[in-house]
Amino acid sequence: MERGPAETEPANEDFELLHRYWSAANYLTVAQIYLQENPLLTEPLLPRHIKPRLLGHWGTSPGLSLIYAHLNRLIRRTSAEVLFVAGPGHGGPAVVANVYLEGTYSEIYPKVGTDLQGLRRLVRQFSTPGGIASHVGPATPGSIHEGGELGYSLMHATGAAMDNPGLIIACVIGDGEAETGPLEASWKAPSFLNPARDGAVLPILHLNGHKISGPTVLGRKSNEDVEALLKAHGWDPVTVSGEDPYLVHRALATAMDESYGRIRELQAQALAQGVHRPAPWPAIILRTPKGWTGPGIVDGLPIEGTYRSHQVPLANVRENPEHLAQLEAWMRSYRPETLFDSTGRLVPELAALAPEGSLRMSASGVSRGGTVTALEIPDLEQYALATAPRGSMVHETTRPLGELLRDIYFATADNPRFRLFCPDETNSNRLGAVFEATDRCLLEPAGEGEHPLAEDHVSPEGRVMEVLSEHLCQGWLEGYLLTGRHGLFASYEAFAMVSASMTIQHAKWLQHARELEWRGPVPSLNILLTSTCWRNDHNGFSHQGPGLIDAVLSLSGTVTRIYLPPDANTLLVTAEHVLRSRDYVNLVVVDKQPHPQYLTLEEARRHAAAGASIWSWAGNEEPTGQEEPHAGRADPDVVLACAGDIPTEETLAAAWLLQEHLPELVVRVVNVMDAMVLPPRNTHPHGLSDEKFKALFTADGEVIMAWHGYARALHQLLHGRPRPERFHVRGYNEQGTTTTPFDMVVLNQMSRYHLVLEALRRVHRQVVGADELVDFCRTRLEAHTRYIREHFEDLPEIRDWAWTPHLP
Amino acid sequence: MERGPAETEPANEDFELLHRYWSAANYLTVAQIYLQENPLLTEPLLPRHIKPRLLGHWGTSPGLSLIYAHLNRLIRRTSAEVLFVAGPGHGGPAVVANVYLEGTYSEIYPKVGTDLQGLRRLVRQFSTPGGIASHVGPATPGSIHEGGELGYSLMHATGAAMDNPGLIIACVIGDGEAETGPLEASWKAPSFLNPARDGAVLPILHLNGHKISGPTVLGRKSNEDVEALLKAHGWDPVTVSGEDPYLVHRALATAMDESYGRIRELQAQALAQGVHRPAPWPAIILRTPKGWTGPGIVDGLPIEGTYRSHQVPLANVRENPEHLAQLEAWMRSYRPETLFDSTGRLVPELAALAPEGSLRMSASGVSRGGTVTALEIPDLEQYALATAPRGSMVHETTRPLGELLRDIYFATADNPRFRLFCPDETNSNRLGAVFEATDRCLLEPAGEGEHPLAEDHVSPEGRVMEVLSEHLCQGWLEGYLLTGRHGLFASYEAFAMVSASMTIQHAKWLQHARELEWRGPVPSLNILLTSTCWRNDHNGFSHQGPGLIDAVLSLSGTVTRIYLPPDANTLLVTAEHVLRSRDYVNLVVVDKQPHPQYLTLEEARRHAAAGASIWSWAGNEEPTGQEEPHAGRADPDVVLACAGDIPTEETLAAAWLLQEHLPELVVRVVNVMDAMVLPPRNTHPHGLSDEKFKALFTADGEVIMAWHGYARALHQLLHGRPRPERFHVRGYNEQGTTTTPFDMVVLNQMSRYHLVLEALRRVHRQVVGADELVDFCRTRLEAHTRYIREHFEDLPEIRDWAWTPHLP
Repeated sequence: MERGPAETEPANEDFELLHRYWSAANYLTVAQIYLQENPLLTEPLLPRHIKPRLLGHWGTSPGLSLIYAHLNRLIRRTSAEVLFVAGPGHGGPAVVANVYLEGTYSEIYPKVGTDLQGLRRLVRQFSTPGGIASHVGPATPGSIHEGGELGYSLMHATGAAMDNPGLIIACVIGDGEAETGPLEASWKAPSFLNPARDGAVLPILHLNGHKISGPTVLGRKSNEDVEALLKAHGWDPVTVSGEDPYLVHRALATAMDESYGRIRELQAQALAQGVHRPAPWPAIILRTPKGWTGPGIVDGLPIEGTYRSHQVPLANVRENPEHLAQLEAWMRSYRPETLFDSTGRLVPELAALAPEGSLRMSASGVSRGGTVTALEIPDLEQYALATAPRGSMVHETTRPLGELLRDIYFATADNPRFRLFCPDETNSNRLGAVFEATDRCLLEPAGEGEHPLAEDHVSPEGRVMEVLSEHLCQGWLEGYLLTGRHGLFASYEAFAMVSASMTIQHAKWLQHARELEWRGPVPSLNILLTSTCWRNDHNGFSHQGPGLIDAVLSLSGTVTRIYLPPDANTLLVTAEHVLRSRDYVNLVVVDKQPHPQYLTLEEARRHAAAGASIWSWAGNEEPTGQEEPHAGRADPDVVLACAGDIPTEETLAAAWLLQEHLPELVVRVVNVMDAMVLPPRNTHPHGLSDEKFKALFTADGEVIMAWHGYARALHQLLHGRPRPERFHVRGYNEQGTTTTPFDMVVLNQMSRYHLVLEALRRVHRQVVGADELVDFCRTRLEAHTRYIREHFEDLPEIRDWAWTPHLP
Repeated sequence: MERGPAETEPANEDFELLHRYWSAANYLTVAQIYLQENPLLTEPLLPRHIKPRLLGHWGTSPGLSLIYAHLNRLIRRTSAEVLFVAGPGHGGPAVVANVYLEGTYSEIYPKVGTDLQGLRRLVRQFSTPGGIASHVGPATPGSIHEGGELGYSLMHATGAAMDNPGLIIACVIGDGEAETGPLEASWKAPSFLNPARDGAVLPILHLNGHKISGPTVLGRKSNEDVEALLKAHGWDPVTVSGEDPYLVHRALATAMDESYGRIRELQAQALAQGVHRPAPWPAIILRTPKGWTGPGIVDGLPIEGTYRSHQVPLANVRENPEHLAQLEAWMRSYRPETLFDSTGRLVPELAALAPEGSLRMSASGVSRGGTVTALEIPDLEQYALATAPRGSMVHETTRPLGELLRDIYFATADNPRFRLFCPDETNSNRLGAVFEATDRCLLEPAGEGEHPLAEDHVSPEGRVMEVLSEHLCQGWLEGYLLTGRHGLFASYEAFAMVSASMTIQHAKWLQHARELEWRGPVPSLNILLTSTCWRNDHNGFSHQGPGLIDAVLSLSGTVTRIYLPPDANTLLVTAEHVLRSRDYVNLVVVDKQPHPQYLTLEEARRHAAAGASIWSWAGNEEPTGQEEPHAGRADPDVVLACAGDIPTEETLAAAWLLQEHLPELVVRVVNVMDAMVLPPRNTHPHGLSDEKFKALFTADGEVIMAWHGYARALHQLLHGRPRPERFHVRGYNEQGTTTTPFDMVVLNQMSRYHLVLEALRRVHRQVVGADELVDFCRTRLEAHTRYIREHFEDLPEIRDWAWTPHLP
């Protein structure tokens, strides 16, 4: 339904003060975009007051400020705890203006005080080198969301709401963002938010009709269609639209009041009567002109209400006296002299409109990560596998992790602050033990009379978040983390690329946020990539892609970590570490299928702490009698290095083959489980010292390296190490189909036989028996390939084509 | 509205034959998943007939086959040209079964004939090493869509419909896929499909209620809500649901007939009356049980209609006699002896149900790229910039490209086969000249009484596709290309990462498709990255990311190309090349801002053909009197190499500084515009021969390289070249904010001064004046940094902070 001028309750409220507050925000927005001096227009506007380069987005700003002012009103009336998420984050000057008006900005950045000098700095710093960025970002108090790359506002808001029962997240969505896929997916939130335990998301879909240079789809649709869209997803929307500010104030205030009442009602109802279906959460559709209150016509072209108001509505103001005059008239239309006193301070009757203390949205505690309660990680001993003798136990590597996560769910039942997010793959990822502690979360009711065993652990009370959208899984988790809770996103390796751009943006956020002292650390974004390229033999080529490693490799070492635990116990240790860590993007790559297990928990802890170690039991060097580094020891003939579970298996087999066939050859096996030990320390803080690097990989010897990801990606890590071309890397080489696991390593030339052949090519000395071993390997590879390519045609029966040549 | 059992027109039709055809498809689906022998159950089923590893997805398959059979019926009645897009591409065995039943499979793959031997091969090859993949893919006749990574079916269908007026694309969307963001975004198609000139997309949303292990959101929603969702986007949906096959046949046939009639009606109406608003295209919501006709209960658990039927409903069939018996009963329930004759051929009365010849969906010409009509590219001379003297003209590099694209639009007006796809950035990308030839496409009507100048080139007739979704832009383009047309996707560099996963999947498709002779080549996917990391100084850190280069680097060299034209004329030559090319993913990275221009068109052609050249005019080597390679010439003291526009600018400035200050130093400048000349030829077909590589970069000399992307990405390209560590690479290093363009290169240590300092560090001999130049550079950098960091605070006026130190 549309709430227009006709319905005017709260009829008796006087919106003049609120309107002036909005004017103050608009004024400061324009001032930030244009001025470097004369911030209050205490003298006539001159060209030298204007910044030399005009940057900023005006079009969305009045809408953001309008919403902010009305939320302030709501907070003052209800004392509700509200978080503000600005989807149109390019409206940075509007949000900064509001944060400044309520005093938080000056508290956090004392140089930008509530006086003339502070105002001057406020306007000068905006979008100015050495100043502040043009978008909402980590430096903006109260924000958990950048809004640079559009699409994620509503999922961040939804994640922030989970397990935050008191909180209301007001999420502004622009009509540009509303065209993105991730945002469209986010409308499903009511199916996943439980009003009895989660906070409320109040979406405010702000349709001003235009993007940077064209109309928007939703902006041109009828109110009925837009409302129907939201209704279909479970929301209970109301439309507020208009061009007369006072009528809009009334309608928006009413919509806010009613939305708030409805939220509390739904929550109370849920607590009293239980949760049986999605709650019809209120949502507001706000239609106001783009660039509202800005210039109407400039140079004969309409500006207000059109795409032309998107950025800077008046260009070349320094050079164009007419534009300068228009700007001055525009700014004076807000009557700054009535908004600020002569010292530059907001007049008291307006300052009184802001909420107080921590109720100010810009001072929200949850937005600063300051409220993080650590997870207590249960003792790993109870999940660890008994691995002796090494490699003999074959076990699904991720299954013990599932048990650990189960117990974290149990341990946090009274103070819920951990969730697992997974695109419908929790069982497939062998993490199904969590369902002993909780369910999949879904509020949509099952059909009547359905077989009681037709579903497996699905309820509105569940805290495992499964939805077939990597965007939603990751976006919800990001919102959950940025408000101080903990979690894990588990996904197919190839399809983690779907949300790679989010991973990059989150890393950028963390990189800047950790430079801000007033922001506390937040739990890390933990991405577990199971079902890896090597073991999507059954699903085929589209499911085989280790690209996320490459995407993360390039980001700042201050915030990125990449772990490749070779077995279950190292995975447990890794999980413990990443769940305790703060402010990182942790990528953990490990396959879910049954794999040989190698290390005891104690060994796993040592190995994880080192990041990479010599596995002396897998080689045949003389024991030195001392722990690493193996200083003083003679170099082996060849170093076989590996990172990742499948590469480790093939490397161990290659090492065995070499030793079995060529006992005089001295072989060393190095396992790397922290990829970031490989680059030099000036590239990444985990980089090994030159001494330790040499102790593992020798000073100048040949290294045959089997690597989980794209082979070439490893070379960028090794740059800066001495003579990096001595590393002969085998890895995923973009070859694949539906085939056997072993054929995958053959197709990509990373099989044990390929590694042996490469090693023998690189060994500098003559070794008795080497030629025979070469023949042996070639014969095995040929037999394999013949078998794979021909058996289904010519052999009488397809034999066990899951065949993997285990060690003899 | 729901079309259920009550409405039973076409009441007089007998669906028995169609039902048997469906049974045949279901039978062959089960046979492919389970059997390696005895494909027609001519003898009792034995363990040795069963494959050793059971792979495949049964759950979605009966739905796919049902839809396929009903589309066949529609085609036979109407002779409509229909393309089939299987969103649930994991239902590979169902689609292969249908393609086989209508004979196309045997025509393309004669070894899989329409006899017993062919049937045996059909079932053996499925999901078997050396056989065929488990998903629909390039090897599946009729397909333009893999459906491995979910989310893109409806956008591919929509792109295929554009400028294909006769075509109907039947697009099956699974309820798993319906949870993804990209799919949700695709529902906007009616706002962009013009019934007077485009084909029709018929979405068939198949809700079977379950994913791999849990319920789906839409599957649990009411018919009303699902219909309301589609209606809100502009569709006119009808729901067909049921569990009784014959009732569903009737209802589905009616829905198909009515949908077809409605499509033709909408198209005729549009042609007669013009297009003023989105057409209410029909859409079908089909609700049938998951794993329909499969086992009901196995081991006491319900299978049919639940998530447990997603993959292989009966496990361990070889070992478990009860399961074996259940499988045999299941298979015999389809009565194979009535479907196939004793020679293995489909009985004639069923074979007669398939459409004939090229009307078979699996034989669709547009699905094979066989219908590509080349673009005629106008003579580039008319767009080329006059660049003399070199570097003196500063021009927006992408603007001449816009003029070229404009004329391609003009040239294809009579036979439309080119479109530009762009997330609302055509003007911002300086490609706005296209609007002289066409408009932005949007069917949503503008508001009444809107100012006539409020919009800029928006109409239902436009062929520039602007929507703020990289997913939609790229997905539509992919559908357009795979059906034989041409196009370009232009995007912000950072946000091209949003659809990076699609780029990877498309490259995988092309890599496999080009190995299939029966598939013709298709126009390349051209991705133009404007607004690059270096020149998002105004938008800030979130907009700065060259990661797509990394993503493409790792893919197969058979299908990937990366171009970094340094100026407008090289961009024109690049555009001509990529628009003519086939079967590639071409990444073209160039900034839209004003930049110095260097090469004449003739020089640009030579440079582009070489991929990398010595720019002798920028260095000070003695001329050799011969063209490259500069064999026999003495090595310079230092090689300055560069790739990308900004790196080129900084490198040229560095070369100038070195020569101006140190005239005795011999400097060479090498510009690389095809990144793939850098790796060895065995890595990429564009890789320079060793000889040419040495001629450019010397055999062993030091090279200072300024590179557009992440510095480390370059090292992976150089791996395999002699002594790669002699390349000292500067590039984007994940540093940025809102600042000046020049500060961006300083922050990332790629400025001219940094390059000079690096060069002087690497020069092997003493050079008079070097120390002074070092001081000069350091002083300039310090002054810059002081200026940037302090000026907005302490200086009386913000000066021209767009300041870039041009050459003196």
